[in-house]
Amino acid sequence: MKHEEDVPRERLIGTAVDLLRRRGLSSTSIRELAKHANAPLGSTYHYFPAGKPQLISEAVTQSGRHVSALLNKALAEGPVAGLEAFLTNWRSILIESEFKAGCPVIAVAADDSSGEGEGLPLAAAAEALREWERLISQGLAEAGMEEPEASAMATFIIASVEGAILLCRAVQSITPFDNVAKLLTSQLRAQTSRGTRARGAGKRSARIVR
Amino acid sequence: MKHEEDVPRERLIGTAVDLLRRRGLSSTSIRELAKHANAPLGSTYHYFPAGKPQLISEAVTQSGRHVSALLNKALAEGPVAGLEAFLTNWRSILIESEFKAGCPVIAVAADDSSGEGEGLPLAAAAEALREWERLISQGLAEAGMEEPEASAMATFIIASVEGAILLCRAVQSITPFDNVAKLLTSQLRAQTSRGTRARGAGKRSARIVR
Repeated sequence: MKHEEDVPRERLIGTAVDLLRRRGLSSTSIRELAKHANAPLGSTYHYFPAGKPQLISEAVTQSGRHVSALLNKALAEGPVAGLEAFLTNWRSILIESEFKAGCPVIAVAADDSSGEGEGLPLAAAAEALREWERLISQGLAEAGMEEPEASAMATFIIASVEGAILLCRAVQSITPFDNVAKLLTSQLRAQTSRGTRARGAGKRSARIVR
Repeated sequence: MKHEEDVPRERLIGTAVDLLRRRGLSSTSIRELAKHANAPLGSTYHYFPAGKPQLISEAVTQSGRHVSALLNKALAEGPVAGLEAFLTNWRSILIESEFKAGCPVIAVAADDSSGEGEGLPLAAAAEALREWERLISQGLAEAGMEEPEASAMATFIIASVEGAILLCRAVQSITPFDNVAKLLTSQLRAQTSRGTRARGAGKRSARIVR
């Protein structure tokens, strides 16, 4: 029974992710969420007793984990592979949505009302972004980059990709994303090959696949 | 008379900029705009006969021009000075708003409904971003960077700063912005001094102050 019961719950979360990506936080009302998920309004409160902030924060957490899983897998092949997986994920969302959808995590950050509902949505967004940063900086450290450079570079990667997504939505073209992707990839390639050379090959082979 | 008549118009635009920065496009209704600007609802249609899309696009255009003017002035001192002026502008908005406000131009890009009103708001956002890119890439070209590298680097600067603004709003801290600012500044310093060296000092002294 549990599985069947969870179907509308998952559908509500999926709808929340989609609306956040496209329209942002404020304009995603609980009523609209229920309507788009083809679920009765009462069921949203059944699954999410704390209402919209709870549903939104679960949607953000789920999106964050999806990207973290992609990163985790790809980073086992090194930081450039991790970056490429991150880029591929966002590039397909832009292309498939014809520049109408972006990152649901950043959508929450762009809205002052994200502090409502005891700050649940904002806390979920911050947690997702911190986890991506942690994973990327760990990948960079394993490729020989020192701290605090590795953490700063991880922030830089996330910031420039998130910014590029929004530039593409503004100009309705993939060009800003591709320009940013190219520059970031070549920078990272140069920096990590320097790091690996400086620290010797031992470090590289000692990397543990998570 | 004209000046006095324009006061509520300017106040409406200022309010639109402020609400866009904080809450985004969809949740900024014309009713709320009038209320926050302390103006009768009718006056919004008096000044902006096409309603919200017209008011929003004027707010975006005005914000875009404000930043373009800052850039234009600072870039006369070279690309690093231009970047620093761009960074200072956004950093103060983050700090003064306690991370509750960001960039009104990007706020429009983050919302699928920005294509409404015959696409006026989205077109204004795209135009503002293109103008910033044009100014920065021109500054880079004058410091010796070739095309298409100069344009790609200009996009990269705007994307990473815009992304950093949103990361700060998510984690409620200036750290992501300062990390991105530091990396960008040192990269740009290295790239433009290389460019200047490669092209000789003649290029530098030939730069025309706009």
